[in-house]
Amino acid sequence: MRTIEWDNGVVTIVDQRKLPNQEVWVKLKNYQDMAFAIQEMQVRGAPLIGVSAAYGLALTAFHSTAKIREQLMKELEEAAAVLRTTRPTAVNLFWAIDRVMKKAQETQGTKEQLAEAVVNEAQIMADEDVETNRKMGKFGASLIEDGDTVMTHCNAGSLATVDYGTALGVIRAAIEEGKAIEVISCETRPRQQGAKLTCYELMRDNIPVTLISDTMVGYVMSQGMVDKVVVGADRIVRDAVLNKIGTYNVAVLAAEHGIPFYVAAPMSTMDQSRTSEDAIIEERSPTEVTNIGSERIAPEGIRVLNPAFDITPLEYVDAVITEEGIFRPEMGLKQKRND
Amino acid sequence: MRTIEWDNGVVTIVDQRKLPNQEVWVKLKNYQDMAFAIQEMQVRGAPLIGVSAAYGLALTAFHSTAKIREQLMKELEEAAAVLRTTRPTAVNLFWAIDRVMKKAQETQGTKEQLAEAVVNEAQIMADEDVETNRKMGKFGASLIEDGDTVMTHCNAGSLATVDYGTALGVIRAAIEEGKAIEVISCETRPRQQGAKLTCYELMRDNIPVTLISDTMVGYVMSQGMVDKVVVGADRIVRDAVLNKIGTYNVAVLAAEHGIPFYVAAPMSTMDQSRTSEDAIIEERSPTEVTNIGSERIAPEGIRVLNPAFDITPLEYVDAVITEEGIFRPEMGLKQKRND
Repeated sequence: MRTIEWDNGVVTIVDQRKLPNQEVWVKLKNYQDMAFAIQEMQVRGAPLIGVSAAYGLALTAFHSTAKIREQLMKELEEAAAVLRTTRPTAVNLFWAIDRVMKKAQETQGTKEQLAEAVVNEAQIMADEDVETNRKMGKFGASLIEDGDTVMTHCNAGSLATVDYGTALGVIRAAIEEGKAIEVISCETRPRQQGAKLTCYELMRDNIPVTLISDTMVGYVMSQGMVDKVVVGADRIVRDAVLNKIGTYNVAVLAAEHGIPFYVAAPMSTMDQSRTSEDAIIEERSPTEVTNIGSERIAPEGIRVLNPAFDITPLEYVDAVITEEGIFRPEMGLKQKRND
Repeated sequence: MRTIEWDNGVVTIVDQRKLPNQEVWVKLKNYQDMAFAIQEMQVRGAPLIGVSAAYGLALTAFHSTAKIREQLMKELEEAAAVLRTTRPTAVNLFWAIDRVMKKAQETQGTKEQLAEAVVNEAQIMADEDVETNRKMGKFGASLIEDGDTVMTHCNAGSLATVDYGTALGVIRAAIEEGKAIEVISCETRPRQQGAKLTCYELMRDNIPVTLISDTMVGYVMSQGMVDKVVVGADRIVRDAVLNKIGTYNVAVLAAEHGIPFYVAAPMSTMDQSRTSEDAIIEERSPTEVTNIGSERIAPEGIRVLNPAFDITPLEYVDAVITEEGIFRPEMGLKQKRND
């Protein structure tokens, strides 16, 4: 399913907070709508956050009443500044904004030509994302064998991208090659993207999926029920993968059981300028931990931690699957092996 | 807080399913009430399950209209058979029923004398449980240092016992010795006993506690926020500890970070007749995973696993704390070291 669409100055998204119980499509008309959608996680997943931010700039360009080029550039800069503050950890957000702003700066001509270039760039990025995921899927599928049960954490599927998915794209590609694959999806507390989104999109595609609580990861691995792990990434720094909280638990447990642990992420997720030392981990609202919908699950006044991401050192990662091929971290991220 | 009370043929318990939002006390008048309370987890926690089963037999004895001793013995055997089916994993259930039935068989005299002996035995077991936990706490406190932050999983506190707790008893004893201790409580999906019960009883006692989702265990350990782990046990077999699902995740992650991992449990939890090979892991209802209160968190029709316990090999356990002293598994469970 395509999760984000541009149509003549209106961006339509599925409100991921309401899945799987309701499929509500929301129309966004300006960058403020988009900033809200990213911050409140109506859209989420590193690649989709990137494309969404690009579309936020496209909305600004499309609807601008600026008379001259310089005025539109100023509006785009304001929109970019707001969009940059929405979520700190996924690098794709910054990558996407930088790419659109660079395109804008390089575009010569009138205000109309600039606006058209910005909208076009966002459209290209959305289409590229799907293409990227399909390439990634093809590379990744070579690591997955017929009959494998693959564990995944959070949602790195269609719903985390424009379409097809990163980690789930690898699974889809393996199935398209004729392999029989089953998936174990970890609930992924606090926001339960595994239970709510991964289960939803896999069931929709008739891919066999079993839901477990995050507490069950080690047990099902110890019972020989998991052949491979594939997850996505929000930012890959020089020495580690930043991804949804709980990824590190799964990685350590996979290593302990000798289960290959793979990360599927586009090149736009790579951030070779940082290490885990200066990684920024978003801390989100305590209510995500203490409340589930209308249910309060902890005493009033309880102190809570809510880091949204964790840090998995590359020593736990057997391969990083990208659209350019498969990288083996033990050889350094620079060296890739297309097998 | 004392979680179970006997008063003249009525057992009063706090309905643990309703905590922390409501503190509802329930009166139980026969063994069927008690079997329901154990099965539905109005009472839970291995030591409390044991004492509850003993009280179930006491209710049968107290209210029996049998005319002769043999008739009461038959009624007790029927009650014991039903109580044995309530939950399969915690060995204390079987230990407690066996102990009361042995006492009954050994008791000479009239039906009235038999009934009195059964009620007395249940009362003794309840009082012994508190005494056991205090002894265990004292031994365990020697392993906890001033200033430690102790992670615990599920609830092995007052609410899992008659009073004081096993793992939380160790923490209470350390605090009584004047040590400053903070606790990190893992939510413990699916039933969230960490969020609901451990946070509740520690806040009630003004012990500083922070709630995390189960996905955050590795991250907070990697950030140096955890000095020790202490958990309870439902059954300790020759080569492993059976405890609430998720315990094994925490144990592996603790080992990976060089954090001592301790199990606090009474001698009645020991089952030297079995190994992890023939351990019985209770599988509970899928709705525990897919629903939280009135909230549905996964698509209709999703396939679910719900093992209630997992198996932590003794190689991950640095010490087992009992009322008889501290056992170091690396020396074999038979050898204890009272330090």
